[in-house]
Amino acid sequence: MPERLKSAGRLAVGLISGTSMDGVDAALVRLGGPAEKPRVQLLAFSTAPYPKAVVRKLLAIAGGRSTSAGEISQLNFLLGEFFAEAALKVCRQAGVRPRRLEVIGSHGQTIYHQGFPTTIGGRRTSSTLQIGEPSVIAARTGATVVADFRTADLAAGGQGAPLVPLVDYLLLRHPRQGRVALNIGGIANVTVIPARARPEQVFGFDTGPGNMVIDGLVRHFTAGRQKYDVQGRLAAQGKVIEFLLARILRMPFFRRPPPKSTGREQFGSDFLSRYFFSRRGASVADLVRTATELTARTIAEALERLVFPRAKVHRLIVSGGGAHNRLLLSRLRELLPGLPIELSDLYGLPIKAKEAIAFALLADRSLHGLPGNLPRVTGASRAVVLGKIMRP
Amino acid sequence: MPERLKSAGRLAVGLISGTSMDGVDAALVRLGGPAEKPRVQLLAFSTAPYPKAVVRKLLAIAGGRSTSAGEISQLNFLLGEFFAEAALKVCRQAGVRPRRLEVIGSHGQTIYHQGFPTTIGGRRTSSTLQIGEPSVIAARTGATVVADFRTADLAAGGQGAPLVPLVDYLLLRHPRQGRVALNIGGIANVTVIPARARPEQVFGFDTGPGNMVIDGLVRHFTAGRQKYDVQGRLAAQGKVIEFLLARILRMPFFRRPPPKSTGREQFGSDFLSRYFFSRRGASVADLVRTATELTARTIAEALERLVFPRAKVHRLIVSGGGAHNRLLLSRLRELLPGLPIELSDLYGLPIKAKEAIAFALLADRSLHGLPGNLPRVTGASRAVVLGKIMRP
Repeated sequence: MPERLKSAGRLAVGLISGTSMDGVDAALVRLGGPAEKPRVQLLAFSTAPYPKAVVRKLLAIAGGRSTSAGEISQLNFLLGEFFAEAALKVCRQAGVRPRRLEVIGSHGQTIYHQGFPTTIGGRRTSSTLQIGEPSVIAARTGATVVADFRTADLAAGGQGAPLVPLVDYLLLRHPRQGRVALNIGGIANVTVIPARARPEQVFGFDTGPGNMVIDGLVRHFTAGRQKYDVQGRLAAQGKVIEFLLARILRMPFFRRPPPKSTGREQFGSDFLSRYFFSRRGASVADLVRTATELTARTIAEALERLVFPRAKVHRLIVSGGGAHNRLLLSRLRELLPGLPIELSDLYGLPIKAKEAIAFALLADRSLHGLPGNLPRVTGASRAVVLGKIMRP
Repeated sequence: MPERLKSAGRLAVGLISGTSMDGVDAALVRLGGPAEKPRVQLLAFSTAPYPKAVVRKLLAIAGGRSTSAGEISQLNFLLGEFFAEAALKVCRQAGVRPRRLEVIGSHGQTIYHQGFPTTIGGRRTSSTLQIGEPSVIAARTGATVVADFRTADLAAGGQGAPLVPLVDYLLLRHPRQGRVALNIGGIANVTVIPARARPEQVFGFDTGPGNMVIDGLVRHFTAGRQKYDVQGRLAAQGKVIEFLLARILRMPFFRRPPPKSTGREQFGSDFLSRYFFSRRGASVADLVRTATELTARTIAEALERLVFPRAKVHRLIVSGGGAHNRLLLSRLRELLPGLPIELSDLYGLPIKAKEAIAFALLADRSLHGLPGNLPRVTGASRAVVLGKIMRP
């Protein structure tokens, strides 16, 4: 183990903008302890929203709208500025000088992710594209930056996702309890950590949409005035359109065994148009209720069919914006009777900060030459050091 | 100076695909000597052409054709495979195991470059976009890769180009001779190295089109069967259309003082359509002759107006594919009487390998934490370490 990993008190920032594409989450953490059992203390967390015009542009481009090399190039540098500002903001909040940071880990903004190979130029190729130029972050902060975490896993034959499971393993594993970490972001994903697990026993996968479909509907029907269904109140007024739900549940993705990952390509605007916007009869509340049920049911069924047969689970630990959705959580409790469901806050990982914290920790590992993927989770042929390192 | 830089015999590969977008040049070199005066020995050089369909796609996208995030993402990974294969090929050629390489420096394929800020999202933003995913190169070769050399200079307020001048300075400076290194690639650029220069006395800039306009015409009128004007033979049969040349020479770019850089955005397909394809009367030979004269005249005038008043020049050292164009070279000799014009081969830098060699050397510098830009050349606010480092 490198000497520096033993020393306590390395300051790091994690930056991420998720599939909701609304702005940059920044977590400032103090990292300590050995590499195999790191300690993480959250010192500050903040969110820096993108300007609305940028959100619209990103959603359109990630939704497949035609663009140009120039537009993507310019957006990459523009988002670099936003990511840099988010890092500076969270440092200011905690009174920490950015130059004191050991590292900034920036996930960037995914605008395309193709975890399964398709044929291009006569070759089977997977790919992923995150923007938010890390050279700009390094220049503005004066800190070392690690970014572009997904490409190395893809190059090693993996799906490039999910990456948080290693962090879940490092921070949440338990000698006697089997635990499942569930993150409900735009996409929902689980990490399964059997009691006393070794890294290679951990597995995880995307279960399907988290908030993406719900948010997409709310945005659409409020013409962008509302971004999500606050605490699930709108859905609570509607009822599930069962035959629509049944139709969606027949999508092959839900049947596929892990490893599997998904994104806006599958559950973005095309999906909404195909299944939801065409239903003129239904009320908005019914549509949102159905989308909420879709998330709850696909999570619960993934656990029942793909997790419980393979691991004894004592706790479900929930994070991500979807953990604020009371209806969603209460539906999960009903669908998974007997399984204690807790928020990640109880484990020192505030629900909205968990993903940003994860990329601070992954950056720290990369800087020290430690692998950041779990091959069983991503499907990669081996554990690899993730990310690209930039010196300020 | 880091200890390792003193040791002789570091093996490195440099990879680049230039603005002609026809394939990947790979140079395998042995680096030795101190950082301030490195020695470079070329061990092998090869070119790996892209498939034709890929060339067409790249030219279209770099020419501003509409695309999608997905297409750029997939092309990035596909080109990563081509760059990796080019590296493996040049290693095989020399019987060197890729894992023995200290570093691979990959310039990537530029598909957009905007060296001057324009307003986007309410902000002044410059940007550059190189594709050819370096994580793929690292995975396929097992070597450490440094890539994306231009972003850090742009983030420091520079134009991200040209970057070869530092290498020219390191390899070509002379205690008593003022030297100008002229590279005639798609774009032509000069590095001015006064006798006994310190790094901050070196300057350089793009003079305008190199082969880009000539090649574009030849490609167009042969429907892609021919890619360039072999030794300038076609142009030699035509005559200069003087008033067309005069019109082009009025473009503001040529008047602008250095630092300045340009690319396919300015001299690509739009330029050809505007000035050349519309001239139905003229013969193809006349058009190609005029394009050749454009390159010769803009190089010579840049030297007369922007270089000679500021530095005493004893040698012009030419590299790049354009050095094969006999008509172009003889026109330069006529336009610059009294200035000895030599090929870079004389200095151990074969004309077609020089740019690839440069990125091997720049990667080595980055790996050792040494800056790779010349602020006076790029306009950056400071000298910065270039590139992103990936471990295999």
